[in-house]
Amino acid sequence: MNRFDTETRLTEGADGSLHGHVHSAWNIGANPNGGYLLTLALAALQRTAPQHPDPLSVTVHYLRPGIADQPCELDARILRTGRTMSTGRVTLRQAGEVRLEVMAALGDLSAHAEPVLSLPMPAIPPLQDCVSRADSGQGLELPILDRLDIRLHPEEARAGAAGSARVSGWIRLRDGREPDALASVLFADAFPPSVFGLLGVVGWVPTIELTVHLRRRPAPGWMLGSFQTHDLAGGRLIEDGALWDSTGHLVLQCRQLALVRQAERKS
Amino acid sequence: MNRFDTETRLTEGADGSLHGHVHSAWNIGANPNGGYLLTLALAALQRTAPQHPDPLSVTVHYLRPGIADQPCELDARILRTGRTMSTGRVTLRQAGEVRLEVMAALGDLSAHAEPVLSLPMPAIPPLQDCVSRADSGQGLELPILDRLDIRLHPEEARAGAAGSARVSGWIRLRDGREPDALASVLFADAFPPSVFGLLGVVGWVPTIELTVHLRRRPAPGWMLGSFQTHDLAGGRLIEDGALWDSTGHLVLQCRQLALVRQAERKS
Repeated sequence: MNRFDTETRLTEGADGSLHGHVHSAWNIGANPNGGYLLTLALAALQRTAPQHPDPLSVTVHYLRPGIADQPCELDARILRTGRTMSTGRVTLRQAGEVRLEVMAALGDLSAHAEPVLSLPMPAIPPLQDCVSRADSGQGLELPILDRLDIRLHPEEARAGAAGSARVSGWIRLRDGREPDALASVLFADAFPPSVFGLLGVVGWVPTIELTVHLRRRPAPGWMLGSFQTHDLAGGRLIEDGALWDSTGHLVLQCRQLALVRQAERKS
Repeated sequence: MNRFDTETRLTEGADGSLHGHVHSAWNIGANPNGGYLLTLALAALQRTAPQHPDPLSVTVHYLRPGIADQPCELDARILRTGRTMSTGRVTLRQAGEVRLEVMAALGDLSAHAEPVLSLPMPAIPPLQDCVSRADSGQGLELPILDRLDIRLHPEEARAGAAGSARVSGWIRLRDGREPDALASVLFADAFPPSVFGLLGVVGWVPTIELTVHLRRRPAPGWMLGSFQTHDLAGGRLIEDGALWDSTGHLVLQCRQLALVRQAERKS
């Protein structure tokens, strides 16, 4: 079994409650990565709606940081199940306090529909010309890079270098486990914050809320992510992103509201 | 008292429960407009966190259509309150069934921050050159136009005419009540679906999930909305939108996942 599956595995208590363990291997600095915590929550929801395995629309609010190397409890409930879709919510708790509150619509993306409209995959340099996120000078310890292999566009790979709030690059699980819908959601929150190309070293940019729309199950291979901030005011930014699979198909769109404390300017 | 405030007014039961009434004046066809139902839910949440009056991030899942001319029950609870923000959720029920499930982060947007980055307001023709939504040939009865005055860009105002999935125009409450944060959220779901410019008459496009990010309280006057669908596949679309106030400042961004049954093409 690979690390992603092992480290997002849930166990069921005698009373039906679901439990996981937050592994510090997925940390950004001292905090568990938000995307990783979200996959734990979604794994719980998937168990409650097995006929609708794919998250179509996921929104998470991060109420408190997760705690690395500690267990977590998942409280998942389905609010409605229809023919093509189930809607549910999950609460992830650690040390008795709510960390994540998640709402999601789940469906089945096994049938690929030919898109009428889609976002074209941007052209970025091939893998061998990209720069590891480990060398991006983000001013944070990144244990998560032992789990994720992230190669950034060479012109966007260093803090402050791009001159714009954009970051793109290639991503996969380091142990070769192929991407699926759940891993794609993790990838949506694994790149450096796109403002770092504009503002330089910004430290940890805590996500308030993240919404991911899954459009297709990814094909095997590296995925390409592209993220951009068009809207930054009052110390809060809205970052838009998308991920494509190795066949060039759009897999997801995402958007997050996050805090950037350095960027605050009151008028 | 104006109609928007009157028709989103809540009453509190002896047990602290909150109740409203879904007025058919806000219908799209036979169904209450989703944005209107959302304002009822948000009004309930605002009561529970009076120190944080402005919705910063709102996500709603529409589980079942609302029922016009019927009461609704609101179950609002705050999950966490911090110094600058509260996070909560609300369930809107009618006839004993969940219709809307809402999650939101609330804060205070009374201090206007000078944006570091923002979305520029698009140039569209002045009000007198725009076309009432009533004349847009959308193939639906639109009682809501007795409450909302919506004037569409003349090149995007008729089903199928634009040749692209874009719609923009001016909007305000018809009785002259000035916009605020809550009315802006309603405006985010009040324009014709932007695919109607590409696909022609599409009928009702039911929203599965809508997320709105409020960036600023609007100034008095007409607001400008612009909406576009870049992603349509498998009978589901993702529509991006934004609203600006009469001073040209960005007030909100929004994105929704919705169903378009005609557009389905299986491969």
